[in-house]
Amino acid sequence: MNQELFALAQQDLAALEAELLSVVDSPVDLVHKISDHLVQAGGKRLRPALYFLCARSSGGQPATMMPLATAIEMIHMATLVHDDVVDSSNTRRGRPTANSLWGNQMSVLTGDYLFAKAFALIATQVNQNMLRVLADVICAMCEGEIIQNQFIFQLDQSEQEYYARIAKKTADFIAASCELGALSAGLTEEATNGMRQYGYALGMAFQITDDILDVTASSAQIGKPAGNDLRQGIITLPVLRALTVAEERDSLRSLLEQKVVLNDEEVRQALDIVHASDGVAYAYAKVDAYLQQAKEVLPDCLKENFRETFCQVADFVNLRKC
Amino acid sequence: MNQELFALAQQDLAALEAELLSVVDSPVDLVHKISDHLVQAGGKRLRPALYFLCARSSGGQPATMMPLATAIEMIHMATLVHDDVVDSSNTRRGRPTANSLWGNQMSVLTGDYLFAKAFALIATQVNQNMLRVLADVICAMCEGEIIQNQFIFQLDQSEQEYYARIAKKTADFIAASCELGALSAGLTEEATNGMRQYGYALGMAFQITDDILDVTASSAQIGKPAGNDLRQGIITLPVLRALTVAEERDSLRSLLEQKVVLNDEEVRQALDIVHASDGVAYAYAKVDAYLQQAKEVLPDCLKENFRETFCQVADFVNLRKC
Repeated sequence: MNQELFALAQQDLAALEAELLSVVDSPVDLVHKISDHLVQAGGKRLRPALYFLCARSSGGQPATMMPLATAIEMIHMATLVHDDVVDSSNTRRGRPTANSLWGNQMSVLTGDYLFAKAFALIATQVNQNMLRVLADVICAMCEGEIIQNQFIFQLDQSEQEYYARIAKKTADFIAASCELGALSAGLTEEATNGMRQYGYALGMAFQITDDILDVTASSAQIGKPAGNDLRQGIITLPVLRALTVAEERDSLRSLLEQKVVLNDEEVRQALDIVHASDGVAYAYAKVDAYLQQAKEVLPDCLKENFRETFCQVADFVNLRKC
Repeated sequence: MNQELFALAQQDLAALEAELLSVVDSPVDLVHKISDHLVQAGGKRLRPALYFLCARSSGGQPATMMPLATAIEMIHMATLVHDDVVDSSNTRRGRPTANSLWGNQMSVLTGDYLFAKAFALIATQVNQNMLRVLADVICAMCEGEIIQNQFIFQLDQSEQEYYARIAKKTADFIAASCELGALSAGLTEEATNGMRQYGYALGMAFQITDDILDVTASSAQIGKPAGNDLRQGIITLPVLRALTVAEERDSLRSLLEQKVVLNDEEVRQALDIVHASDGVAYAYAKVDAYLQQAKEVLPDCLKENFRETFCQVADFVNLRKC
């Protein structure tokens, strides 16, 4: 994420980096080494950034802000390291994944360690409702990933099924990050609910954009192979749309009906068909609608500078187009 | 575990089975199916059984007893399903593992789901100190497994390193189960500490016995291939001892120094050398010492029928010899 965008949380985000490095300092060398690699690999820190913004939105600095933001990012890191095992990914953000460097075994265990360490960090610090929100969202993410795996190469899934899946996989966690921030700030129930809905809509837009980038961006731009999802049979919105409306939809269906990982030439052919259809434009229209919705649900009580920032974050998601 | 042994907790253990099946009833079919398989696969339920005994030891029935016991067993199940991925095991307790039936991807995600669901179940029910104990113990187990992986085919590890490893891998969790029970029962700090130490010593004896069975039992007896640890280069106490004292210790060293998974004939040769040494007897002497210690640290305040049961559990661990 653009640093300026999070100017209101910039100091918090800098402190978070130090905190993350300190928390993963396990007495077991290899745990420390892998966790450290994950922290150093960076990332957008979108979830803690949104958490910080929400937590500071009522003007205060909640005492348990830093541990909670740290736990949120550690949980995100844990899901990424397990996702990379599940997807057998070799690179993420242009750097080698933990599984490619240390193998699946160590990556599974390090992910578990990060999950548990996140809860250990906050168990005695935040209230139990917050712990519940976090635990629930991990359940949802696992369900989302499992559903995604079940739907691989399933060409007759509905758009609703796609939205339900990305909600569990991505949007619920971003919603929870905003909700936890609002709870930390002591916002009213109505305002907390508004921030949660903002996070949800932003998260949906974010995931659809990611799914668009999979079919439009070059490998260099996204730090992983282009067409990666398509290759593995993960049917994203632009592809789902192309399967319905593309002129050569029968060819696209034939390519994917083989139900085996696509080779480079097949990926190229499939991408050409998607690009020739309105799949990408259709998906961007959905992104726009979600971002519009995100802005509309922002609670009235927000101070102007925070409202502006939340709107800018929404605009930024829209600018990730390639 | 022998049912009679846990007569004082028998009804609780029966209720636990129903509770486990109900908790894993995810709306996502496959999550439910895999979790259900894990519950139906059974197991000793040692950790919840010890938890129940401790929780009931002051005569009451703590309100949050069932969710906490359920969370303990779910965490145990999650570690087993991930262990089976990490070890590429095909059978456990004589039944196919989740990874052999549904693949590594689904197993990693289901394990994550069970971890998170366990915390979701108790987040708002038990006190935060208890949540912290559970989160810490998962960290310890991950560290223990990671250390074990680092020490694979490392022939010059010390006995102390072995003990430290199995403490993290196994004993700490059994200690925590007893501690959580004592906390639920409202025992004094001293008595709680005593129960924790009992669980720790019992857990050490339990893991050493498991490690002995790996070199003495038939596949049918332990429900997984005999010599499985040895084959993979996990150096357990009987093997570690044989590496020091066996007449043919140089041959044993040569077999393991190849640092590759042993074939059947090599496993047989290695087992023969271990059996010809005092490795197994030496390890059993350690088991006896830990079980003696377990009985000695039981707190004075325990009612006689509970004290007797805890002692019988210790004796039972000793009777697992083959």
